Amino acid sequence: MAAYIRNAWYMAAWAAEVPKDGFLARTLLDEPWLILQSGDGAWVMMADRCPHRFVPLSRGRRVGDSMACGYHGLTYGMDGACVFNPFGKTLPPEARVATRPLVERHGGLWFWPGDAERADPATIPDFSFIDDGKDARDHLLMDVNYELIADNLLDLSHAEFLHTETFGVNGALFEFGEQTVESDDSGAVWNKWDMNGSRPPEWAVPMVGDARVDQWLHMRWHAPASLALMIGVVQSETRAPVVPPMANPHILTPKSLRETHYFFTCDHGEEAAQMARRVFLEEDEPMIRAQQEAMGDQDFWALRPVIMPSDAAAIRARRRLIQMRREEA
Amino acid sequence: MAAYIRNAWYMAAWAAEVPKDGFLARTLLDEPWLILQSGDGAWVMMADRCPHRFVPLSRGRRVGDSMACGYHGLTYGMDGACVFNPFGKTLPPEARVATRPLVERHGGLWFWPGDAERADPATIPDFSFIDDGKDARDHLLMDVNYELIADNLLDLSHAEFLHTETFGVNGALFEFGEQTVESDDSGAVWNKWDMNGSRPPEWAVPMVGDARVDQWLHMRWHAPASLALMIGVVQSETRAPVVPPMANPHILTPKSLRETHYFFTCDHGEEAAQMARRVFLEEDEPMIRAQQEAMGDQDFWALRPVIMPSDAAAIRARRRLIQMRREEA
Amino acid sequence: MAAYIRNAWYMAAWAAEVPKDGFLARTLLDEPWLILQSGDGAWVMMADRCPHRFVPLSRGRRVGDSMACGYHGLTYGMDGACVFNPFGKTLPPEARVATRPLVERHGGLWFWPGDAERADPATIPDFSFIDDGKDARDHLLMDVNYELIADNLLDLSHAEFLHTETFGVNGALFEFGEQTVESDDSGAVWNKWDMNGSRPPEWAVPMVGDARVDQWLHMRWHAPASLALMIGVVQSETRAPVVPPMANPHILTPKSLRETHYFFTCDHGEEAAQMARRVFLEEDEPMIRAQQEAMGDQDFWALRPVIMPSDAAAIRARRRLIQMRREEA
Repeated sequence: MAAYIRNAWYMAAWAAEVPKDGFLARTLLDEPWLILQSGDGAWVMMADRCPHRFVPLSRGRRVGDSMACGYHGLTYGMDGACVFNPFGKTLPPEARVATRPLVERHGGLWFWPGDAERADPATIPDFSFIDDGKDARDHLLMDVNYELIADNLLDLSHAEFLHTETFGVNGALFEFGEQTVESDDSGAVWNKWDMNGSRPPEWAVPMVGDARVDQWLHMRWHAPASLALMIGVVQSETRAPVVPPMANPHILTPKSLRETHYFFTCDHGEEAAQMARRVFLEEDEPMIRAQQEAMGDQDFWALRPVIMPSDAAAIRARRRLIQMRREEA
Repeated sequence: MAAYIRNAWYMAAWAAEVPKDGFLARTLLDEPWLILQSGDGAWVMMADRCPHRFVPLSRGRRVGDSMACGYHGLTYGMDGACVFNPFGKTLPPEARVATRPLVERHGGLWFWPGDAERADPATIPDFSFIDDGKDARDHLLMDVNYELIADNLLDLSHAEFLHTETFGVNGALFEFGEQTVESDDSGAVWNKWDMNGSRPPEWAVPMVGDARVDQWLHMRWHAPASLALMIGVVQSETRAPVVPPMANPHILTPKSLRETHYFFTCDHGEEAAQMARRVFLEEDEPMIRAQQEAMGDQDFWALRPVIMPSDAAAIRARRRLIQMRREEA
Repeated sequence: MAAYIRNAWYMAAWAAEVPKDGFLARTLLDEPWLILQSGDGAWVMMADRCPHRFVPLSRGRRVGDSMACGYHGLTYGMDGACVFNPFGKTLPPEARVATRPLVERHGGLWFWPGDAERADPATIPDFSFIDDGKDARDHLLMDVNYELIADNLLDLSHAEFLHTETFGVNGALFEFGEQTVESDDSGAVWNKWDMNGSRPPEWAVPMVGDARVDQWLHMRWHAPASLALMIGVVQSETRAPVVPPMANPHILTPKSLRETHYFFTCDHGEEAAQMARRVFLEEDEPMIRAQQEAMGDQDFWALRPVIMPSDAAAIRARRRLIQMRREEA
């Protein structure tokens, strides 16, 4: 499978996931990390691995603004340097754990695994649409490669086959839609489905009756795999919104090449959280995992996939990643 | 472990295993296949893998004489060609799944994974003895290599040690028998045990009392691993059968190099099916799996096995396979 | 991971683990072995693998002073030679299983996996201190590499962090102790912690009140990983023992490079056995396994561990093993 892209922003966690005065241990891009907030409010990302005997510091405990290893007591400050050795007067300078800059944006904590000098927070993708807090922020783990999930999200036509039991049958919505694939100045790739003058979806009939509607599903992708979905339905004639426009993050960060952290939002409440898990974990994930198993260790392109017009955005995103990997190689 | 032989007939399934108007999904020689019968009765074997994103077509559904993928709806006809794309006007000619000829013989469906031009149905091993339908046709999966099972079947003397709890103790039947190893015109290897003038087995005493009997167990092997066992007991003097002669298929098709489909017959009824599973899965399989684990990834011959006279047939079969692999290499 | 050292004594089992008239099957250094005692009392170690079809002889049965294979009945004597073949008149001379000399010392059975000519029983490490039988002899399996366990034992300062719930808090005992690392004529490496003039540990206060005590923990290591711990507490002024001095074996024999047989002693009774398992399996093993997982397949030195003064003995032991491996390579 393809190597990780290093010089890019990845979301590590929702800020709200990190316990005050504690820490969050999370594996990201195959490496174990600790995420914590120092007493003065600064966000810290440090390797979850003691350089003495390599055990996870998360098996120890947080002591103020430091982490004490649970094996032999070596203690590390927020900058990663060893600040205490119970059994020796000296602190070997090589006793230091790696750290990464960690930036909070719109409730998410973002890190840059590559060359720190190139990490410009201004290039973190814009998810300001969640700042209103109207939706709950959630996180789950999918046992599949992040590029396969991005493929899934960049071709929502799969909903008409894979999500019929949860989303219902939409009368072949996509078949009558128009698909546009675009790039923008932020480096995003957009996959836009516009269904203008279409019959309203089942759930909208009580609101608009027979009137034609314009619907859209616009998926935005930023490398490596941070996506946002913008949805709208307006009456074709009046342009009056049938429902308020919606926007949802679908932010993917590899745990490993076969496991992905999936950051998303949904309505508040247990029912919506259960519904999201059903869609993601009982419909999408089994299909994508079957795909991953069928692919084995082979490269996507080496398998010579059939390319359909509906794949245009996913293919453009995959090509972007190939180009980035070439630049990093 | 040794490569698969491609130019040979393998049994894929019993015809009765395939649901009418549905399909059977089965992995054979490490590849996923769909087995189905078209509306006009023709048998079809097609790859269980959509060429678009590689997911199993068995996660979709059968629509008349076609299979619709459950991910994005691409639909394939019985000849493997794509016949429908919900989201595009064109059908890319490369959207085609592989097919294999599938031939029904004596209730079994046989396929030829190699060069289709060389596939002559006349060379499918003869199992016509099951046409009377007196026995139930069954199938199980063993988590061991097919050659190790063939070794087991080609040296039935193991019954005196491994199957004492199910078959009983036969008074060292094999020790007094004569073993003959032969080939025949069909390419079969035969391992024949003949126990002439022997004391009757326990179960036969009520029928023949003290009279001497001639017993035989003749195992027939066709490459790669399709076996048949012929059993008989007659009174030595009168040649009158003590029981009607029996014949049973033991047809082995690799699922992978460490898993084997085992097609067999047994008496009708749950009790006989349970007994067969006990013999195959609780006696044979654990021993063969222990053998497989002990061998690890090493080749059988590289381990320099001790060769006994009773191994003659198994060794001849193994040599035949080596020769076939050389021809295919 | 580093190769096994062949020319060294390893403990295979406690003699008391071997059933009279039966056998003990145990994997040692990745190879399956049978350990048994012949009718005349001699200890026997023979390969648990029939040379005919490689199945474990432990799936067969012991018949007097021989082992009968459970697959085809080949039977082997205590010297490993085949003594019976049910289905042939001849006994192929190559039908022979490997054996190893097995020496009983202080209730343990020791074997030498390398060049038998170099195996001098006089070099078996001295564990005569258990001959009094005051402690129960026990055995458990840890799913970690034996060198990582030896590291753990050669730096007991970890007790102040990892074993606080079982051993209690000892008031930073080690911090005030003096550490000495020595070698001796037997080839042992010693790691000695001496806490002279220290406050008595909690459990000793009822006995000595306020009086200062001299305590010591001396760990002895013999290659590859046979350790002994000597513990003592005396009143500093009078030199009177506060408790009788204690000595405990911690003998480690690799099952594989990631699994280790751990031979130890503890007080008689279920409570002490449970306590030992809690310390070893609920405190030490999870930490060491986390270490092993973090190290993956990488060599300890390639990971450039930080070396602390408290690591001196463990490092000396690791260097000794490197030297032995070089000599064997």
